[in-house]
Amino acid sequence: MSATTDSASTAPTQRHPSQSPDSVGIVTPQVMTFDEPFTLECNRTLPRFELVYETYGTLNANKSNAILICHALSGSHHAAGYHSVDDKKAGWWDNMIGAGKPIDTRKFFVVCLNNIGSCYGSTGPASINPDTGEVYGPDFPLVTIKDWVRTQAMFSDRLDIEVWHAIVGGSMGGMQALQWSVDYPTRLKRCVIIASTPKLSAQNIAFNEVARQSILSDPDFNEGYYLKAGTYPRRGLILARMVGHITYLTDEAMRAKFGRDLKSGKFMYGYDVEFQVESYLRYQGERFSENFDANTYLLMTKALDYFDPTRGYVNDSTEPTTSQNSHDNSDNEQDRHALTQTLERTECRFLVVSFTTDWRFAPERSREIVDALMATHKPVSYVNVDAPHGHDSFLFDIPRYFDAIRGFLTAK
Amino acid sequence: MSATTDSASTAPTQRHPSQSPDSVGIVTPQVMTFDEPFTLECNRTLPRFELVYETYGTLNANKSNAILICHALSGSHHAAGYHSVDDKKAGWWDNMIGAGKPIDTRKFFVVCLNNIGSCYGSTGPASINPDTGEVYGPDFPLVTIKDWVRTQAMFSDRLDIEVWHAIVGGSMGGMQALQWSVDYPTRLKRCVIIASTPKLSAQNIAFNEVARQSILSDPDFNEGYYLKAGTYPRRGLILARMVGHITYLTDEAMRAKFGRDLKSGKFMYGYDVEFQVESYLRYQGERFSENFDANTYLLMTKALDYFDPTRGYVNDSTEPTTSQNSHDNSDNEQDRHALTQTLERTECRFLVVSFTTDWRFAPERSREIVDALMATHKPVSYVNVDAPHGHDSFLFDIPRYFDAIRGFLTAK
Repeated sequence: MSATTDSASTAPTQRHPSQSPDSVGIVTPQVMTFDEPFTLECNRTLPRFELVYETYGTLNANKSNAILICHALSGSHHAAGYHSVDDKKAGWWDNMIGAGKPIDTRKFFVVCLNNIGSCYGSTGPASINPDTGEVYGPDFPLVTIKDWVRTQAMFSDRLDIEVWHAIVGGSMGGMQALQWSVDYPTRLKRCVIIASTPKLSAQNIAFNEVARQSILSDPDFNEGYYLKAGTYPRRGLILARMVGHITYLTDEAMRAKFGRDLKSGKFMYGYDVEFQVESYLRYQGERFSENFDANTYLLMTKALDYFDPTRGYVNDSTEPTTSQNSHDNSDNEQDRHALTQTLERTECRFLVVSFTTDWRFAPERSREIVDALMATHKPVSYVNVDAPHGHDSFLFDIPRYFDAIRGFLTAK
Repeated sequence: MSATTDSASTAPTQRHPSQSPDSVGIVTPQVMTFDEPFTLECNRTLPRFELVYETYGTLNANKSNAILICHALSGSHHAAGYHSVDDKKAGWWDNMIGAGKPIDTRKFFVVCLNNIGSCYGSTGPASINPDTGEVYGPDFPLVTIKDWVRTQAMFSDRLDIEVWHAIVGGSMGGMQALQWSVDYPTRLKRCVIIASTPKLSAQNIAFNEVARQSILSDPDFNEGYYLKAGTYPRRGLILARMVGHITYLTDEAMRAKFGRDLKSGKFMYGYDVEFQVESYLRYQGERFSENFDANTYLLMTKALDYFDPTRGYVNDSTEPTTSQNSHDNSDNEQDRHALTQTLERTECRFLVVSFTTDWRFAPERSREIVDALMATHKPVSYVNVDAPHGHDSFLFDIPRYFDAIRGFLTAK
């Protein structure tokens, strides 16, 4: 409406992108409250919790067109659209979700919720602990991918969605989709696992550990009680994000973007920013540190480390071990067997997508999932998409990738 | 002698490894003092400096059998042998240097010096500034690879070694060897460049920047005056080393060593060490922080970032730039041309060695050097060694690698 009014003036018409015909438009987050105690995998209990979520499109009469989006480490429930006409930034997967987009809101009812433990509105370390009346802070229990999936299933019950048309996620979101297929095999028809892995490698854990130590060793962390202390581990969070950010990109993508360009055109022989890549990393780290909670970052990296969909489904031989022996091909064989055995339970169709330049969760990791599914004769499509953006590729509009998602979601 | 005495007792004979026939034995570092002012590339001047060095083997009469070893970031002049019979740890390249070893001390006079700016005895940030009578700390000027090579040339003059039989280095040591071939083309007959690169990539710089920010943002850093303040940026140095260490290894090597093994056998759902790989990284970081100077670490990473052997040898078009444009193939072409043009000056034979799993300085980076040398018709041998240890491979005893070094050094 305001666009029509504006066009009468002499000023150039500035239509807000929420008014674009393929946008889901202005969206309003909703809150769902769970007043029952919820016991987590770590054996600790949340007395109650809230989930913040958004929906796009319309649920059909027989509730068969619902798609659940699972977010990654720094993601939120705000996957598409805008929160107001002043909002400059769209949801994090706005290029994927909308009218005519791969996840087509003319056909599908799309739901995205913020996971517990996060810092965008669902119950997490920055929430008030009803038992004490104070902020949880570091007393918020560690949460696993399996816990998230269980809260998502409870959420589905409340929406009265018995079976999801599809559950879709990239990176840590893909882990949730995979866990869904194992824990609730009859509750999803399609599972889309993008740029993900069946579990973290030692190197993945090592990078997470550097990020955690950056935060934990920041004197302003105050053992997690920084809100109470009136401090904030900003330096630690900046470092954590910087190291994370490097793993989301590729050497080649960074070269293409920054090369060895200097900020001032000459060497300064000091420790201020000299190369453009330094400037970019610091800026990204600083911006992130202003919008993210440090306790949440710690918790999220642990959820990643712990992820192993085979846990609870296979015999003792694949349980965590303290073995100091070297890990040879028989370990690989055992891992493959455990994953295959676990995925036998699944009843949905799978689409697995990897990106050629992703070295955080490399294509080989996606193929482990594909191979295990094939070994147990499950319907799986796999696309390894040629893309230069590394792990971040899953957020880019890449035709082959988007076509694969679109086709998989609409195929009979 | 003591071994003979010991063997008379009933206790099992414990011969110290310095007494092994292939060891260079007990070595004593020496100091060379340069009392003239030395102006660095950054245009600042050291009033005087000292170099600590060790030598192994015997210089022949016509001084034609001398080999210079250049050390890497955390290396020192102590490349081989032991400092005493109580010394438990050999020099950092003891498997490479000794009687019958690839750098054979029966044939060659081997020299290794500690570079200025380092913290193992040569003049550096922890030394006394003669102008003020106080520790340099952060006032120690930034040093470049070219500066190091110039001090090494001055050192060669004082040893009266006009021409080195070979100059050999791995990683940052390889950069020094390469710089020698360009800056002093007539002063070396052979140049051995191992696991190195013609210059750092944006990703390399990014990892260095994370390491630097870890140290710089540690409140105990006190802008570099930590010695004066009685503090030490231990946390920052630990983080810097942890992130560095990950880049020296490979995902595969870490998997083979640690897998996803847990320290206590079960998940603890907390932030203490859980996975073996975390334990290993923290230990490595802590040990390093006890033995290394933070200002030196900063300086070394900058020397890496600045390295570009073409600087000063090519026209303006390859000078540092502030361009924000994307970097396409024409940049690559320009880089190749600049390197080729620079290497035209060289007069020695080259051996370039890379390792298949090295992702810090990947084989492609070594091949850039090889390609440029071939383009200007210089004699170069290249070996890409199959090794699982990533960048660290250059410190391992790998037969094909050692054979290549041995053969190159002795070939007529």
